[in-house]
Amino acid sequence: MRDAATDATHDPSLRSWVAAANAPGTDFPIQNLPFGIFSTPGTAPRAGVAIGDAILDLAAAREAGLFEGAAAEAAAAAGPTLNPLMALGNRAAAALRARLSALLREGAVPLPHLVPMAAAEMHLPAAVGAFTDFFTSYDHTLRGGRATRPDNPLPPAFRWLPIAYNSRASSLRVSGEAVRRPLGIRGERGGGANFGPCTALDFELEFAAFIGPGNAIGEPIPLGRAPDHLFGYCLLNDWSARDIQRFESMPLGPFLSKSLSTTISPWVVMAAALAPFRCAAAVRPEGDPAPLPHLSDPFDQASGHFDIAMEAWLKPAGAARAERIVATNFRHMYWTLGQMLTHHASNGCNLRPGDLIASGTVSGPEDHERACLFEITLGNNPLRLADGTERMFLEDGDEVTFRARAERPGFVGIGFGECRGTVLPAPEWPQA
Amino acid sequence: MRDAATDATHDPSLRSWVAAANAPGTDFPIQNLPFGIFSTPGTAPRAGVAIGDAILDLAAAREAGLFEGAAAEAAAAAGPTLNPLMALGNRAAAALRARLSALLREGAVPLPHLVPMAAAEMHLPAAVGAFTDFFTSYDHTLRGGRATRPDNPLPPAFRWLPIAYNSRASSLRVSGEAVRRPLGIRGERGGGANFGPCTALDFELEFAAFIGPGNAIGEPIPLGRAPDHLFGYCLLNDWSARDIQRFESMPLGPFLSKSLSTTISPWVVMAAALAPFRCAAAVRPEGDPAPLPHLSDPFDQASGHFDIAMEAWLKPAGAARAERIVATNFRHMYWTLGQMLTHHASNGCNLRPGDLIASGTVSGPEDHERACLFEITLGNNPLRLADGTERMFLEDGDEVTFRARAERPGFVGIGFGECRGTVLPAPEWPQA
Repeated sequence: MRDAATDATHDPSLRSWVAAANAPGTDFPIQNLPFGIFSTPGTAPRAGVAIGDAILDLAAAREAGLFEGAAAEAAAAAGPTLNPLMALGNRAAAALRARLSALLREGAVPLPHLVPMAAAEMHLPAAVGAFTDFFTSYDHTLRGGRATRPDNPLPPAFRWLPIAYNSRASSLRVSGEAVRRPLGIRGERGGGANFGPCTALDFELEFAAFIGPGNAIGEPIPLGRAPDHLFGYCLLNDWSARDIQRFESMPLGPFLSKSLSTTISPWVVMAAALAPFRCAAAVRPEGDPAPLPHLSDPFDQASGHFDIAMEAWLKPAGAARAERIVATNFRHMYWTLGQMLTHHASNGCNLRPGDLIASGTVSGPEDHERACLFEITLGNNPLRLADGTERMFLEDGDEVTFRARAERPGFVGIGFGECRGTVLPAPEWPQA
Repeated sequence: MRDAATDATHDPSLRSWVAAANAPGTDFPIQNLPFGIFSTPGTAPRAGVAIGDAILDLAAAREAGLFEGAAAEAAAAAGPTLNPLMALGNRAAAALRARLSALLREGAVPLPHLVPMAAAEMHLPAAVGAFTDFFTSYDHTLRGGRATRPDNPLPPAFRWLPIAYNSRASSLRVSGEAVRRPLGIRGERGGGANFGPCTALDFELEFAAFIGPGNAIGEPIPLGRAPDHLFGYCLLNDWSARDIQRFESMPLGPFLSKSLSTTISPWVVMAAALAPFRCAAAVRPEGDPAPLPHLSDPFDQASGHFDIAMEAWLKPAGAARAERIVATNFRHMYWTLGQMLTHHASNGCNLRPGDLIASGTVSGPEDHERACLFEITLGNNPLRLADGTERMFLEDGDEVTFRARAERPGFVGIGFGECRGTVLPAPEWPQA
């Protein structure tokens, strides 16, 4: 395994003059420093950095002359979206993060440019030009495949390439926005079909990466350069209408079953912040082929694989509290994010700054690592919560929240914030 | 059939003071007036209108004070992309088109704001946020299905909904840009896989629509309002790597087999210009179900169906001239563009101005209406050109050109310009 490239910003003894950043278990200690886009009432969306329970207003800090050189260039690029910062790449963003670490640490002069998180509204961190969703969990694929193709549950290509499809970027929404149950067409036994509110609404717990600098059309990205194009990370709920999906997906894949809405967490955790939590790619089951040469990672983990604990919580409509229903880990994925990126551009497809690539449902081998309701229930065994509530699929009013945390002995753990959405009833069909 | 809503701009007796616009068979008579984005050496891309062999520079005409009211508002919105004009909608664009018809007709004072087409470079007409590709030709689906699913060639959903997938917007390119043969992973007999240059590169002759005003997330668009959201039309070549497609598409559909590049014609033919060429939806084969109520068009043809002759020409590498290899018609499609749009938004998915929806391969029942090489050859019967050249798939240096034309007795026919691309050899895999 290549050196994890940790530096002074990961020093576990670092504390911040923002008291909440020093609380054990906070998502946003000074070792994290993710970027996001926020606004306060009456102000325009702008870039900020999460620290404890507050947001450092980057533009205000820049106007106060707190940045120089590459850090200043990076801060200037972080406007109402992070796309221009993403285009500058990881080196510039890491220079800004290093300077922020110095400015926010205990002993530095406290800055006035802080906004309480509770007073801020978060926005999508980037104008996402394209959203690609992969399908790279061995266990998710196996459980789903056993239900539909018991003799040969893994699709033929699964072991040879990170399977993916283009999903819908326009319906990406930030954590907290409600999700309307979709209307859709479902097949009936006997060959008919009907149109109505989805009766099988599910979540999918996913991990996602924002693309930094892009590539020109016709110019693939070798795996050794993949890390330069993976800018930062967030959580993603790929809301899925299973009844619509079953009917529409043959032969071109999921379409309206996925484009109803997709929720992401608002903070972009930087590649630099995750350096201590890199890990080797998952060990392939015995007998599986080695990756083809262009997808073989000489550094084993350089291409974007992480040890990150991920959770899903369900607060059923009317319930007093949420209950954890999934606890899984990103390290289980069969393909790394670097392999996904290199595969994506291998045909010459151009990726652009701010494009989003998601991992697919992050399931693991254990029962508590089944990361969507379909896997949990397999269509006949309802999820049972502590208060006796049962669910085959989501009901109106249900709230789903994802959280994730990277931990490693000798380092301060970091979190991703929330990826949360509540299900609203389906709309009436509009009059012409 | 509802009245075709023709007006003075469709008057067949209209002639232009631009002589080439009066030539029989021109794509761009005064009855057409499509919008596009062009530049000349040393100038920035800007909006123009095709007339004969020239382009009227919209910004120059606007600065000369030639527009008022809705036409002026529309002209002001047409900037370096047409997205803001698309957002204004068909009424504003039709007002601008009506004024242009008056300005360019014989008898009006000739304007100095013309650029010869031969001196202009064309650009993508819009910044396309999303590109959706449908699969709505009965004959294309039947021929493809017979090859892979002989017992049941039509997918179960085909008669119930316009099947579609999200394709890739970033690799859309304008007519004339070369297309690089992709590298990709193909399955081998016996279960292995390998990576290399595509050996089965194909074209697909498609028709496409740009979205005008969008819809809010969660708010479907009823079919009666679909025409308000269909702004204008172009031709599209959905270059397809069949060997890559066969292996990667199970279960999530085509991905890298399509995102190598997609070519569109540069001129957006307005909904208003196509009014005389509307036609009823294709008659469904006996026994097929009627569309579900929300996809049933009370006006039969209001929702976007057209009688448009479409052609593909192949100029093999080294050949002196191109030969026509496909002659088909858009009227064959099983679903109308209005039904496609209403289905697309039926789950609440938000469409945005400048989004592109394509029809899928426009094939018809006759042999000369097979609109891609896979249909023509069915994998074993090569296409034979007049000079003896044979093709199973495209070779490096082959040039594919699409043209299309709408004709109807009593009206002046209009064309779409060219959608053209030449195949370049695959790249070398880059060093890390």
